[in-house]
Amino acid sequence: MRELFRGPAALAAALFLQSSARSDEGMWLYTNPPREQLRSRHGFELTQDWLDHLMRASVRFNSGGSGSFVSEDGLVISNHHVGADALQKLSSEKSNYLRDGFHARTTADEIRCVDLELNVLQSIEDVTARVNAAVKADASPEEAFKARRAAMAEIEKESLSKTGLRSDVVTLYQGGAYHLYRFKKYTDVRLVFAPEQQVAFFGGDPDNFEYPRYDLDVCFFRVYEDGRPARVPHWLKWSANGAAPGELTFVSGHPGRTSRLLTVAELEYLRDEQFPYTLELLKRREVLLTAWSARSAENTRRAKDDLFGVQNSRKARDGGHAGLYDPAVMGAKIAAEKALKEKLAGRPEFADARAAFDTIARVQGEVRPFAMRHRLLEGAQGLSCDSFSIARRLLRAADELPKPNGERLREFSDAGRESFEMSLFSEQPIHEDLETLLLADSLTFLAEKLGHGDATVQAVLAGKSPRARASELVRGTQVRDVAFRRRLYKEGAAAVTASKDPMIEVARVVDAEARGLRRRLEALDETERQAYGAIAKARFALEGSSSYPDATFTLRLSYGLVKGYEEDGRTVPAQTTLSGMFDRAAGMEYRPPFDLPKRWMERRRAIKGTVPFNFVGTHDIIGGNSGSPVVNRAGEFVGIIFDGNIHSLVLDFAFEEQKARSLSVHSAGILEALRSVYRADVLVRELVQGRRKG
Amino acid sequence: MRELFRGPAALAAALFLQSSARSDEGMWLYTNPPREQLRSRHGFELTQDWLDHLMRASVRFNSGGSGSFVSEDGLVISNHHVGADALQKLSSEKSNYLRDGFHARTTADEIRCVDLELNVLQSIEDVTARVNAAVKADASPEEAFKARRAAMAEIEKESLSKTGLRSDVVTLYQGGAYHLYRFKKYTDVRLVFAPEQQVAFFGGDPDNFEYPRYDLDVCFFRVYEDGRPARVPHWLKWSANGAAPGELTFVSGHPGRTSRLLTVAELEYLRDEQFPYTLELLKRREVLLTAWSARSAENTRRAKDDLFGVQNSRKARDGGHAGLYDPAVMGAKIAAEKALKEKLAGRPEFADARAAFDTIARVQGEVRPFAMRHRLLEGAQGLSCDSFSIARRLLRAADELPKPNGERLREFSDAGRESFEMSLFSEQPIHEDLETLLLADSLTFLAEKLGHGDATVQAVLAGKSPRARASELVRGTQVRDVAFRRRLYKEGAAAVTASKDPMIEVARVVDAEARGLRRRLEALDETERQAYGAIAKARFALEGSSSYPDATFTLRLSYGLVKGYEEDGRTVPAQTTLSGMFDRAAGMEYRPPFDLPKRWMERRRAIKGTVPFNFVGTHDIIGGNSGSPVVNRAGEFVGIIFDGNIHSLVLDFAFEEQKARSLSVHSAGILEALRSVYRADVLVRELVQGRRKG
Repeated sequence: MRELFRGPAALAAALFLQSSARSDEGMWLYTNPPREQLRSRHGFELTQDWLDHLMRASVRFNSGGSGSFVSEDGLVISNHHVGADALQKLSSEKSNYLRDGFHARTTADEIRCVDLELNVLQSIEDVTARVNAAVKADASPEEAFKARRAAMAEIEKESLSKTGLRSDVVTLYQGGAYHLYRFKKYTDVRLVFAPEQQVAFFGGDPDNFEYPRYDLDVCFFRVYEDGRPARVPHWLKWSANGAAPGELTFVSGHPGRTSRLLTVAELEYLRDEQFPYTLELLKRREVLLTAWSARSAENTRRAKDDLFGVQNSRKARDGGHAGLYDPAVMGAKIAAEKALKEKLAGRPEFADARAAFDTIARVQGEVRPFAMRHRLLEGAQGLSCDSFSIARRLLRAADELPKPNGERLREFSDAGRESFEMSLFSEQPIHEDLETLLLADSLTFLAEKLGHGDATVQAVLAGKSPRARASELVRGTQVRDVAFRRRLYKEGAAAVTASKDPMIEVARVVDAEARGLRRRLEALDETERQAYGAIAKARFALEGSSSYPDATFTLRLSYGLVKGYEEDGRTVPAQTTLSGMFDRAAGMEYRPPFDLPKRWMERRRAIKGTVPFNFVGTHDIIGGNSGSPVVNRAGEFVGIIFDGNIHSLVLDFAFEEQKARSLSVHSAGILEALRSVYRADVLVRELVQGRRKG
Repeated sequence: MRELFRGPAALAAALFLQSSARSDEGMWLYTNPPREQLRSRHGFELTQDWLDHLMRASVRFNSGGSGSFVSEDGLVISNHHVGADALQKLSSEKSNYLRDGFHARTTADEIRCVDLELNVLQSIEDVTARVNAAVKADASPEEAFKARRAAMAEIEKESLSKTGLRSDVVTLYQGGAYHLYRFKKYTDVRLVFAPEQQVAFFGGDPDNFEYPRYDLDVCFFRVYEDGRPARVPHWLKWSANGAAPGELTFVSGHPGRTSRLLTVAELEYLRDEQFPYTLELLKRREVLLTAWSARSAENTRRAKDDLFGVQNSRKARDGGHAGLYDPAVMGAKIAAEKALKEKLAGRPEFADARAAFDTIARVQGEVRPFAMRHRLLEGAQGLSCDSFSIARRLLRAADELPKPNGERLREFSDAGRESFEMSLFSEQPIHEDLETLLLADSLTFLAEKLGHGDATVQAVLAGKSPRARASELVRGTQVRDVAFRRRLYKEGAAAVTASKDPMIEVARVVDAEARGLRRRLEALDETERQAYGAIAKARFALEGSSSYPDATFTLRLSYGLVKGYEEDGRTVPAQTTLSGMFDRAAGMEYRPPFDLPKRWMERRRAIKGTVPFNFVGTHDIIGGNSGSPVVNRAGEFVGIIFDGNIHSLVLDFAFEEQKARSLSVHSAGILEALRSVYRADVLVRELVQGRRKG
């Protein structure tokens, strides 16, 4: 599927090299840090020791997010929202740690997480030559792809048996480079402390992506080895004073994905077609779920997760879209692309790259006429509900599984079988009323977008109104019964055909067309990928790794200043205070999500209100950086990233530092909360002293 | 402007005569009541006395809505939401009667409304012949229009001087008939009782257009003459038991407007183009305002009215749109149109009418390509904020006012001057932040819909992003200063041109194109109006007034049963009870808008919970019917209309009685609330006895 923010990684610096010389841009590889920029712009001399220490004190959460060691006894800090998945899995109706918080006063009270794995990067090795050597010069794209994958798997296997470390070969610069990352793995991870979700996510959706902010978005875990707290050689000293406005600070973490490489033609496509479509759909869905939720407390509960996801996406997309309308962003993109093309001009070795720009523009033009149909039918946004999704997987499993592995749709491959079945047979509750609501609305959307007279629309609606048809399909299908799914899946094609389940029937009605649309789009995507590859190679040939690659959830170093900004003629301060949170709560009359935990209200007088709580900086970050430590020149922990402001949403496409800001919890604010609200004296002592006992 | 629900009135019965024989359809004229249907379907003999009494006991609120006399001492009941405008005007910060309610225990406490006028219909006279006689056979459409208006004005003037009664000639059946309506006018209207808005609109937006419902949507006024309560000859006896399930009841009120005449071609245009566009805009606006409101209490206050309006429209439109997708509705429309065309076939006198169907279809096709542009530029939905609206009126006033009256855009006519200036110089607060939010979003919408590269879009944005441009325009303009407006308006064109106000400049940038689009659409609308006129005349020639005309805010009689319905396989009961309201509030944990006034909570134990509160019926109603009395066979007051359910939203286009329901407050529930909650013994006695003292 052609998704927002999808796109081959590369070319980032290519398009922004000019600006990076003049700003604190960059998600830098640890093998290629911005030494020169730090020296010239900030008078800071980056040493290898400093860098190695920070690298080994940085922690990757495989559930998606970042963290760091903050004591030699294996204490890890991350965001509450990064730890939320682990907290949820430890919670029961009786003990809702996710909502109510948790505090182990002794190591004996620390509880082991169900399936949390933490990784700590130990070394990076450039294996580009070996990977490329595996590919013969005359190989077709398919053969090249296969040979490269085989070489990478061999390197990983070798490294694992030699070092015992988790070993991943990662692709950088869209194939411009291949690096072997070796990680120490921790699988015995225990929960130490979490605040109430109320204060971790104070302000909820209204304040999400906003600033000023007042969130204690932290939680603490501890890694264990052989049943005892692990002794870790690298950990960050806690700065009790924390970051000060104007101070140079660093962020070490795992930005998930950026799309700074896209050509102007593709960015325009996103701006003019994809974003408006996606935002229309999201806003429509948000109104639907909000209005339905308001009708009953049970509706609210049932729709809560969906609604939060929709609101979060809507806010992020609205921000990204505004960025694409900003001449500062788009103008820079146009200028950079022009500059690059000038460098490529007249050089025969770059003929492929030059042609690639036209190829990408052509692909946009070819995708445009059927993109909507693809999203509605293959993307199922015109048939959106869990029951349809299950029905289609049953239908396609029956068709696909009998085929040889290599010829199946990729989600039916043998490698993915286990997780496919886990998802297909999930016992998660599916509510008939919510299903009907969603399907009725998406069938209406389908009819609106393709036209009521469209043959596929007519076939799907079968002479009914969207509401009546949705009700009939949802009520008539058996696919919400897991036993039914298991039986059909086991018995295969004949059983699926014989079942006459109405939702499976409707999946069949659209299947041939949906598959056809998918094949068309996949072919164009492949063409586009190769074109981006050609540009990336040219780029790399011109500049090597003097720049940073697009984010790929590998460890990166960003730097920037703790710094406020101007917005609508007002100065937004660099940091907020603890008393600011109480003011905000009072200003919103303590209505959820602006209410505060009982404990906070009771101990309010004991809290030093002037202590900094959250702050903003010019660091170049993106989703995945959540939980990243912010450190000062001395390498001390001064804060923890937990969000970006609304203007940072453009960072997916381009760096900006006038208004885009990273958001962090301040190290002094964390200490003060632990001390005065949670009376977590043992934990505070461990943070201050860097070890558990002393 | 081509608006939803716009459309010349007529043909209603034409398209639905078949169904009206089989159902309780119809908004009947008092001169042409459904005697035969009532006799054959319900065994009810409608007498002229019964009808005259009900007509003279029915009250029209000129602010928009219906009501009735319920005591011989001039006591009037209507809906709280119909009286809201009067309540608002009597309220101050100190005494918020709209929010907190009002109760005059003696006539001395009754307070006079600022500008409320009530009309009571006294007689109806058919003046069709005289109006038509004024039009010469060879007159052009323009001449015919003028001659007819003159004849109508003459009839009205004559009647007024002869009877002293307000006299209006109304157009029915789209010019098929002209009737003279004479009203007794009451201008001294005093407030007697209103409950808290909380209980009048219990459930707020989430329960708006929904059922089951629990709203005490009533208030009481009293008409005065010569400073004393007026003695009225016709008033409705209050039924203490009220309506029972299955009972035949009647609704006497003033339905505002229906569009049941539209041809299938125009309905398809609405379904496929207009509704999707309007709903996209409404949902986008709803998300914008909801998200912004959630950011602060002050934002919530500022956006409240706008947001309620958007939600109300969105819900109404979603319902109407669903109706247009319902094959039961559209199938009937298609069949009826086919049947009518068959009757017209081969008869030369109906050649115009036959051609009219094609003309209307052609107009849809011609409107389609520029309708969006028209809405965005002339409709200003791409430049949506109060500041722009003011700036454009200043700009156009300077251009238009120097022209002769007859050549101006119609909103600048001499007749409308007073209200135009009142609106232009209104001191209502306009908030810079909300203006910027709205304009930024609508400029984005403009760019999305017309394309970023469109010349007009480029000229409007002036090289800025939508957000930056909106901020610049709203901050730079002076039009929010009323003195500035007055000065510019007074000084005229030269001053407007000299001012260089950026919002006026941007209005000028789009003005020529906007005016051109308006001219194009007005020409097509005129063509369409004439085509509908031709169909209506043919219709009328075939059937006379054996059916009912489209609603036009004239008094109508509807009838139907108190009756529940089936929805999603569940039976929805015909009535709710007072204790049901407490259950609903508890189920929603008393969170607004499901909280109850203090008084209700305190006196809960005194309330008889089993008393019916709200009920539903199959009456054919639409907006404007709010406040209409529901009476039984004996002509007694058994309830008061206050809303329709979600399925009733299709009644704009066609009658339906499977699920569409009118919603009323039950007469017994009103009495019980007055007695047990408000201890309004004097008022209760007046209702029960039909007079103040006794």
